[in-house]
Amino acid sequence: MRRRLRLGMAQINTTVGDFASNTRKILDAIAAARPQGVDLITFPELAICGYPPEDLLFKPQFIQQNLQSLNEVIAASTGLTLVVGFVDTKDDIYNAAAIIHDGRLVDVYHKIFLPNYGVFDENRYFRAGNRCPVYTIAGVGVGINICEDIWYEAGPATVQSANGAELIININASPYHFGKSKFRERMIATRASDNVAIFAYNNLVGGQDELVFDGNSMIVDETGRLIARGKQFEEDLIIADIDIESVFRARLHDPRWRKETTFLKEQEWQVNRLIISDAPSASPKSVLPERSITAGDLPGETYSALVLGTRDYIHKNGLEKVAIGLSGGVDSSLVAAIAADALGNTNVIGVAMPSRYSSPGSIADAELMAHNLNIKLLTIPIEKVFQAYLELLTPAFEETKPNVAEENIQARIRGNILMALSNKFGWLVLNTGNKSEMATGYTTLYGDMAGGFAIIKDVPKTMVYTLAKYRNSVAGYNLIPSTVITKEPSAELRPGQKDSDSLPPYELLDPILTAYVEEDKSIEQIINMGFEANLVKRTAHLVDTSEYKRRQSPPGIKITARAFGRDRRLPITNRFKSG
Amino acid sequence: MRRRLRLGMAQINTTVGDFASNTRKILDAIAAARPQGVDLITFPELAICGYPPEDLLFKPQFIQQNLQSLNEVIAASTGLTLVVGFVDTKDDIYNAAAIIHDGRLVDVYHKIFLPNYGVFDENRYFRAGNRCPVYTIAGVGVGINICEDIWYEAGPATVQSANGAELIININASPYHFGKSKFRERMIATRASDNVAIFAYNNLVGGQDELVFDGNSMIVDETGRLIARGKQFEEDLIIADIDIESVFRARLHDPRWRKETTFLKEQEWQVNRLIISDAPSASPKSVLPERSITAGDLPGETYSALVLGTRDYIHKNGLEKVAIGLSGGVDSSLVAAIAADALGNTNVIGVAMPSRYSSPGSIADAELMAHNLNIKLLTIPIEKVFQAYLELLTPAFEETKPNVAEENIQARIRGNILMALSNKFGWLVLNTGNKSEMATGYTTLYGDMAGGFAIIKDVPKTMVYTLAKYRNSVAGYNLIPSTVITKEPSAELRPGQKDSDSLPPYELLDPILTAYVEEDKSIEQIINMGFEANLVKRTAHLVDTSEYKRRQSPPGIKITARAFGRDRRLPITNRFKSG
Repeated sequence: MRRRLRLGMAQINTTVGDFASNTRKILDAIAAARPQGVDLITFPELAICGYPPEDLLFKPQFIQQNLQSLNEVIAASTGLTLVVGFVDTKDDIYNAAAIIHDGRLVDVYHKIFLPNYGVFDENRYFRAGNRCPVYTIAGVGVGINICEDIWYEAGPATVQSANGAELIININASPYHFGKSKFRERMIATRASDNVAIFAYNNLVGGQDELVFDGNSMIVDETGRLIARGKQFEEDLIIADIDIESVFRARLHDPRWRKETTFLKEQEWQVNRLIISDAPSASPKSVLPERSITAGDLPGETYSALVLGTRDYIHKNGLEKVAIGLSGGVDSSLVAAIAADALGNTNVIGVAMPSRYSSPGSIADAELMAHNLNIKLLTIPIEKVFQAYLELLTPAFEETKPNVAEENIQARIRGNILMALSNKFGWLVLNTGNKSEMATGYTTLYGDMAGGFAIIKDVPKTMVYTLAKYRNSVAGYNLIPSTVITKEPSAELRPGQKDSDSLPPYELLDPILTAYVEEDKSIEQIINMGFEANLVKRTAHLVDTSEYKRRQSPPGIKITARAFGRDRRLPITNRFKSG
Repeated sequence: MRRRLRLGMAQINTTVGDFASNTRKILDAIAAARPQGVDLITFPELAICGYPPEDLLFKPQFIQQNLQSLNEVIAASTGLTLVVGFVDTKDDIYNAAAIIHDGRLVDVYHKIFLPNYGVFDENRYFRAGNRCPVYTIAGVGVGINICEDIWYEAGPATVQSANGAELIININASPYHFGKSKFRERMIATRASDNVAIFAYNNLVGGQDELVFDGNSMIVDETGRLIARGKQFEEDLIIADIDIESVFRARLHDPRWRKETTFLKEQEWQVNRLIISDAPSASPKSVLPERSITAGDLPGETYSALVLGTRDYIHKNGLEKVAIGLSGGVDSSLVAAIAADALGNTNVIGVAMPSRYSSPGSIADAELMAHNLNIKLLTIPIEKVFQAYLELLTPAFEETKPNVAEENIQARIRGNILMALSNKFGWLVLNTGNKSEMATGYTTLYGDMAGGFAIIKDVPKTMVYTLAKYRNSVAGYNLIPSTVITKEPSAELRPGQKDSDSLPPYELLDPILTAYVEEDKSIEQIINMGFEANLVKRTAHLVDTSEYKRRQSPPGIKITARAFGRDRRLPITNRFKSG
């Protein structure tokens, strides 16, 4: 009989701390997979409590509730084997996978490599594991490990493969940034082929504050070929038949695999073998329907990440409606489009707040945008309040010249109006600032920076245009009016103002920002890339001196390799000048 | 000849990334200590680059500049031995101590225990060391280690003591919170007596964003007796004669010390001995003047921490003047007093912004406070702007009842006025919110939360009163008017409003907040402490649902064991309810 195993991977959208809902999703997935004859069902990293729980892990009751939920899952496992992420506690706490079989907790795996870089702080919470077990499940050798564990070439998966694991299950919670899915897929494929094993990568899906988990779970065969893929940015239950026979055959032919065992650090991680179920998978089973294994492309993938991140932030926080200041510019237009896609047009309220400096074109564009999205539009001109502020400040401002103070007053009036609507009606204000503005500080604290969630905060301005055009191409017409895309960017806070009065053109600015902010290149290195020296110095100076603003900005959705926020932690008080 | 050593500990105030200034301070301390005949001069952890440098450590030019500065220090070491904190680079980067002798870098110690809890993220940056050297300096066995290393009872200091170190030098950067200095002193004394060695603890002093390093460096003899102490919250050069003879004598009598060596994990950390200077310290030397070894008491200590934190944040960021909204309440009065003490009264501008709901008493109190501090006061009534907003929003607010929306508009008008003054004149706005408000969300985003630095953000309301009374006792009169201290707290945003309409009395609220926020106690545990169940539940709910506000708050000065900010990292999206 051909050795094989029917695997179910539940790509679920959990919520941090919502034990009832997370457990229900796990039980629902079990109920859905069971009739399909699966042998083994897996769930993402920390599926029980949601990821990342951050300092909630310091609350003993949080750990307790997580264990209670695990018991509910164990009770529902009759006749099945499950792998579920949870927080284990034994002297200390561990990022763990429960291996459950037929109503019993059979074993617990503790994550060995704890990520503590970028957005991750796992050393803050967890003790690392030191055991690398290999299980026999339905007669198949299975190695189970967690997320970061698989990113190391001499990591647990390699040790497990060398000790009889033919199938490696990696449960994880891997956040999205653009380009990452290809990188991840390449790594998993290499790992599978290096170890001549089948690799099943079960990712989380959903938004959690600044992070979006993209799903995109994968099963890769022992040659590195993709044999199944979960949906991107949606929940999914991936069921696939794993052919183990071919692993054994391939190993006999693979000189690297046969020799590699000797290099492994078995002394550091304890390897033990545990037979969970020796009987081979019942056969024959129903034929599974074909699944698509193609992934989304940029920029659609990024657009979907922003939609999911927005929807989950609003809904998981128990909210429904959002307000957006619509200026007629491309940033607020894109934000409105994403919000309407995420929440439905009836849950998005546009607020136009024209001033004496607003061009008639901008007002018309804001109205057209609201019309195209079929969202409600409030128009609240700010002139009278602006006038009242200027009169109020006349004595204090005596003998001074107009400067950024008068400009920012207008932005802050708009912030105040949006927040008043928020306080009155319970709408969350979505900010409309982009990454280029956040980087350079070309934004007003408590003005356009006022709001609960800054959905395009990590989107560079040039990508804002790309996403706007992408959305129009999906719509099949200029949903975002063409004048919005073609007009020169302006904050319209003084007569004839243009972004280019204060900032370099975005086509020059954005690559400099990427080099300086995301890649930590020095000024000299960026100049050597071919950019004008003063331009680079001025840009770096703007970034360095705007840290205090970014510190007070609302959270936003990470879509680049290095977002502002937990990904990039710089002191405000900082006299370092890059050379 | 009696074996002894003259030790200089330079308790300096560094600035992150200011290599020129930090190096100058180091060279100045060397020049000041040299004529006093010191054998060894020590400096705090990462003295060269400032602490904590956070993600600046990811910039290769930052590491380079730090090495260049180290070379300047090495060049200035003729005839002396120095211990200086810097970032070492060798395959990876290390939190390191340079051991410098007579113009030469003799050895480098790498910190073994990297703190990655509370406000610390050192695993994010550094690789841990694995060497525990013992040096002979002026004929004395010396063990050198860094900060966290000394908090472990079987740590490097113990290994070094067991291998011939009679003097342990711990260079560190230990941030202040109230009560910590006593705890730290007890630990060092125990460690010294356990290891029968002299312990010299060289702390940093100064403010860096949310942290204040309190100085308070110490030398403790082999019985645990304090023999020298650095000033609190001030730079200092502590010079002391260390009597090594008594260590040797005491060790011969100490059964614990003679047996302990066998328990030590020498296999894990490499112990080597290096003779730096074998010749005993020149003798006789000048008699050193007596130094005070008494420490400051609460609440004066906390008040000093707030003054230093404020001064350093303003000055290290290149600013001079601050604006403070003076309401006549105790919070803004205390903030103004601290600011005047930190910056000088001519650098503090009070701004009174009365509304239709301000009581005549509040206005008079704000004026009296400004008069007592002799600071400039601007009075800018907000009524006309408030009226203009209400008219503007009349259509949008049609058929709604007045609620928090109208209240917050007023707070945000004040925020806008303060920021307009800031933008016009370059004054930094100091926030006046306290920890009890920050915890419960009893504060207005972009309103009273607007500003650059929130100096009493970590001070519970009940401690605000204590500090106000303390400041008055120092002044010898009611610098902060007695009516300010005795009147019932009110935000004055609607007729007859009192804090107690929305919040429990602060004497009940603050201990509940301490238990819930700082100690992560469960609701049930707090009820069992004797608080009324609904009160505890309501308070926990307020804390849980205000995380989004805190995320956008300006930084403030940590003075409790667990401040909001990097010390407490909770998700905003979070459905966990403590039981």
